[in-house]
Amino acid sequence: MTNLEDPAAIDRTDPESYIAAATDVYRNWGRWGDDDRIGTLNFIDDAARARAAALVETGRTVSLSQPFDMDGPQKGWRRRTNPVHTMLDTGIDAEFGDQGFPHGIGGADDVIAMPLQCSTQWDGLGHIFDRGYAWNGRRAGSVVTSEGDQVTGIEHTAAKVTGRGVLLDMGAHLRPETGELEDGYAITVADIESCIAAQGASSAVGTGDILLVRTGRYARARREGWGEYAGGPAPGLSVTTAGWLHRTEVAAVATDTWGFEVRPNEFDVAFQPLHQIAIPNMGLTIGEMWDLDELADACREAGRWEFLLVAPPLPITGAVGSPVNPIAIF
Amino acid sequence: MTNLEDPAAIDRTDPESYIAAATDVYRNWGRWGDDDRIGTLNFIDDAARARAAALVETGRTVSLSQPFDMDGPQKGWRRRTNPVHTMLDTGIDAEFGDQGFPHGIGGADDVIAMPLQCSTQWDGLGHIFDRGYAWNGRRAGSVVTSEGDQVTGIEHTAAKVTGRGVLLDMGAHLRPETGELEDGYAITVADIESCIAAQGASSAVGTGDILLVRTGRYARARREGWGEYAGGPAPGLSVTTAGWLHRTEVAAVATDTWGFEVRPNEFDVAFQPLHQIAIPNMGLTIGEMWDLDELADACREAGRWEFLLVAPPLPITGAVGSPVNPIAIF
Amino acid sequence: MTNLEDPAAIDRTDPESYIAAATDVYRNWGRWGDDDRIGTLNFIDDAARARAAALVETGRTVSLSQPFDMDGPQKGWRRRTNPVHTMLDTGIDAEFGDQGFPHGIGGADDVIAMPLQCSTQWDGLGHIFDRGYAWNGRRAGSVVTSEGDQVTGIEHTAAKVTGRGVLLDMGAHLRPETGELEDGYAITVADIESCIAAQGASSAVGTGDILLVRTGRYARARREGWGEYAGGPAPGLSVTTAGWLHRTEVAAVATDTWGFEVRPNEFDVAFQPLHQIAIPNMGLTIGEMWDLDELADACREAGRWEFLLVAPPLPITGAVGSPVNPIAIF
Amino acid sequence: MTNLEDPAAIDRTDPESYIAAATDVYRNWGRWGDDDRIGTLNFIDDAARARAAALVETGRTVSLSQPFDMDGPQKGWRRRTNPVHTMLDTGIDAEFGDQGFPHGIGGADDVIAMPLQCSTQWDGLGHIFDRGYAWNGRRAGSVVTSEGDQVTGIEHTAAKVTGRGVLLDMGAHLRPETGELEDGYAITVADIESCIAAQGASSAVGTGDILLVRTGRYARARREGWGEYAGGPAPGLSVTTAGWLHRTEVAAVATDTWGFEVRPNEFDVAFQPLHQIAIPNMGLTIGEMWDLDELADACREAGRWEFLLVAPPLPITGAVGSPVNPIAIF
Repeated sequence: MTNLEDPAAIDRTDPESYIAAATDVYRNWGRWGDDDRIGTLNFIDDAARARAAALVETGRTVSLSQPFDMDGPQKGWRRRTNPVHTMLDTGIDAEFGDQGFPHGIGGADDVIAMPLQCSTQWDGLGHIFDRGYAWNGRRAGSVVTSEGDQVTGIEHTAAKVTGRGVLLDMGAHLRPETGELEDGYAITVADIESCIAAQGASSAVGTGDILLVRTGRYARARREGWGEYAGGPAPGLSVTTAGWLHRTEVAAVATDTWGFEVRPNEFDVAFQPLHQIAIPNMGLTIGEMWDLDELADACREAGRWEFLLVAPPLPITGAVGSPVNPIAIF
Repeated sequence: MTNLEDPAAIDRTDPESYIAAATDVYRNWGRWGDDDRIGTLNFIDDAARARAAALVETGRTVSLSQPFDMDGPQKGWRRRTNPVHTMLDTGIDAEFGDQGFPHGIGGADDVIAMPLQCSTQWDGLGHIFDRGYAWNGRRAGSVVTSEGDQVTGIEHTAAKVTGRGVLLDMGAHLRPETGELEDGYAITVADIESCIAAQGASSAVGTGDILLVRTGRYARARREGWGEYAGGPAPGLSVTTAGWLHRTEVAAVATDTWGFEVRPNEFDVAFQPLHQIAIPNMGLTIGEMWDLDELADACREAGRWEFLLVAPPLPITGAVGSPVNPIAIF
Repeated sequence: MTNLEDPAAIDRTDPESYIAAATDVYRNWGRWGDDDRIGTLNFIDDAARARAAALVETGRTVSLSQPFDMDGPQKGWRRRTNPVHTMLDTGIDAEFGDQGFPHGIGGADDVIAMPLQCSTQWDGLGHIFDRGYAWNGRRAGSVVTSEGDQVTGIEHTAAKVTGRGVLLDMGAHLRPETGELEDGYAITVADIESCIAAQGASSAVGTGDILLVRTGRYARARREGWGEYAGGPAPGLSVTTAGWLHRTEVAAVATDTWGFEVRPNEFDVAFQPLHQIAIPNMGLTIGEMWDLDELADACREAGRWEFLLVAPPLPITGAVGSPVNPIAIF
Repeated sequence: MTNLEDPAAIDRTDPESYIAAATDVYRNWGRWGDDDRIGTLNFIDDAARARAAALVETGRTVSLSQPFDMDGPQKGWRRRTNPVHTMLDTGIDAEFGDQGFPHGIGGADDVIAMPLQCSTQWDGLGHIFDRGYAWNGRRAGSVVTSEGDQVTGIEHTAAKVTGRGVLLDMGAHLRPETGELEDGYAITVADIESCIAAQGASSAVGTGDILLVRTGRYARARREGWGEYAGGPAPGLSVTTAGWLHRTEVAAVATDTWGFEVRPNEFDVAFQPLHQIAIPNMGLTIGEMWDLDELADACREAGRWEFLLVAPPLPITGAVGSPVNPIAIF
């Protein structure tokens, strides 16, 4: 286990062996029964939600969602486009008097088309597979078909993603002068632990917590433009944090980056190895492209890094992910 | 004012006069300044949110969202379709080994196309106009153009829709044997007040509360099929409740029906007159097609009708509405 | 072969044996080389197109397309919806003066979302598979992936679907009083041959022709409403016509029905067996939901059943089908 | 009139006066009756179609469509995206054995979402307005509403766009060394007449012809990448060609550029003035983003510049444009 958590011990030429070893020890298959559909979200129980709600003091509320519109970061990779929002009718139609409604009522309707992975989102458990297997040891092809996720669809988490949120502002902790980690920076267990120590007791992370990791990458995108935000180099969690995530028993983790884990990944030829370990093996729900900037300010102003977090996915039947507007309440 | 709240006094042939009179007395334009974008959501302040969070005891959490899928109620009126969720790639692709990713990782992505008014939703303030005017007295055509809502887009409420929720189970109160009001039943102020009295102090409604009104219509749709759920006859609020909604200073109201207000409406030739009074004049945010059935059970089991309600819209830039998965926490 | 063309010899309990036998004798794999992408469209060469153009006398032109709009027959089977056409901006916007363009120019744009199989269409060769194989003997999974048809995409036929069209008005021939075959009527080789004999020499069918078969089903849908037009009972070609289609060497076949072949199909438990024989094995391009009613009138008025047919698919890269507006010129 | 056709006489500071003068003399309102829906397409009658078909000799057929896929030129201006083509099910699903169909049949379906102006297209008569007016003098707001084009929808041209096509290869004529005009080059009447003279009698243009103008811009885009193909600088027709287009009585005109007319336009502050003159005033159907490169080769090889052109729009009810796969037959 030590080796798996030591970034210096990674053999960059051999992701397969690392992944095989890591999944052997961090796999949670069967932990919540053969029929489980929600993985580590099981770590949050009603008592945990009640404790989280008890954290609320001032009622200050922060939305952690990026805007959903055509000016987003997507460039078409895997046919991920930005959301296309169009109007079916408008106030101009109403004012023009064309709508045919009685007694002066007018209306506007609208429609959206979007990949569920296009902006602030939860990755469902059907989003990633490991060597043909989905969460809890099911064959990938028996879970997610062209009809959608038949087993672990995001709708099963509709009422689950509420609990204690903890923000680790890794950007501010490691780069106090800018608040922003550089692309390619791999956040290690040591980094996490030193951040928790620096931020203090309110940032302790334990069973059932929803961990939010701010890298500062989104702040940079806002300032400088998206550039390669979607899929390009970025700071993020090191693959070596898998063990810490596993034993800490977090319910979910989210970051302000496109891909959650560090990019480029820590092997010469690789694609999102921490996803491969975390989602199908640990059953970990992962959030991406969250806006954690105002939250960081709010934490600093409140003098604490914990809060009630309510981040309900849309219960789209059979979806492998969902857009979300996560709400933090202080 | 008395007349406006008396269902028996409605002149069914003259919606124009009723609406003119009602909007004259219930209009909130300018109440929160000329630049206001969120209307009655201003009634919720941080202190109210903190009080709402203090209601949490057990942590039981209930999702108030209907499923988002093609089996919904929409039949194409105003080009409202049900959500179309399709896969971009699948677990079958991953298991088949076609995806071209390294070290055994596989993935599934998906996409959705949907009218923002198709299922459980918030109507934004740009959704309805009154004689050419939008919320706060702006010209409809200057607010909602083909580019979207330029002023009161739903994104401005992203962090706002959190507060004390109160459920009035009108179905159970008025029809204890079935729990379901019949189509065309117009819920009056007297009905509301008698329900509050019967349910007890925890269902008192006041400034900044988010009021949920269960009619039982959705329970019937689940049992019997959608039928004319979308746009057909339904129980709902009487237009004569506008004054009560206004002086009670609720922040938002939602029902388990397609259209919030009673249908057919209470004039011979009419279309959603309560919307016309409430949205552009009062600035009231309205929720429709919510699932309030499990919530009613939870209230009954908890012995109280109030709870923390977190119902964040997706911040779709310029949208006049949003799908939502509202979360009630006990 | 005789047996395969004898409707009375069909063993309704054993589609597998019939299909196995039919595909053994009608299979065209390799006929146009290992790299072929267009199947029987190879039967049309430039000389055939020139001969077809020489049929033009009066210049009368008939569109064979149904309307593309939300009032179509689809009900959601396999997530096939009707086309959703929406406006991005309108003449009202222009007249209202909101568009921001100089010197008085205004504009309207629009957008469509539609399954490629929703209305008048060509089925591409990647649309149907036989026991895991696609056209020309390729593995289905190596041809049509989640990225689309990598080999036989409809774009390869962009310039191909022009030639001599021949209409067989089976409805008028077999049911002169109504012009409409009843649902479930299976058109046999004998029917086809008697129709050709009755219609006369201009309806002879041979190598490279594009055969259009009018059943009258669409005329009925227009008169009585769609009902179960999409997927329900319908007249259509008997599975026993496969041999005739094969030896006649038609380039393509289209009908005025949803499914081309008779429905219910001619086995107790079956789904579109003639498709299974014709598309992946013969390489036959099939058209469905065409409007052949005005064409029948035009043929009758011209005293001939042949014409120049230009029916170009949209070259959508990797598509397994395409909407089409086929044009017949007399 | 002379002045209107003299590029040197353009007052770049005053597009309004130019447009007012040009529309006064080139306006065709009422020419084909008050109810007309198709404008200059009226110039093509059946006899013209028959003469066009008589041009066919070899049967060589050329598609004039660009590919429809996500790799197109659109960048989101006016929410014009490239087509998004996705699969509903695939050959992998079929081969995997997941589809639940009997006797070994498998299937693939697909869906497209696209602006109707995204690639090779016809602009319908409802696409452009002049000072609040649409084709034939109707108020823009009474023609194209949020429900679509109520009067001149593209469906009315379904059977109309077939006739004699004539290609003018302006790129090759004016820039024989490259075959490509430079961005900003405004093709004048003199250029057109010299090209016709050089190409010879087969390129004479008259009543009812469909004129195709190749600039070479698409050839460059293919070679160098899209760059600013969609909306940026480009060669194209000078606004001063309006009179020639009017008196020549062409039925339709198409080019290989995004915008048909030269860009930047020939006034200091302007947007598509030739569109404004041609579409709502002349009733001219305009084609854009056509692929005329193989066609130019075919003309050169055939030794003639005329051919049968069949370019049927999809009859999308109420559409202001349509994708099209135009077919030229020699």
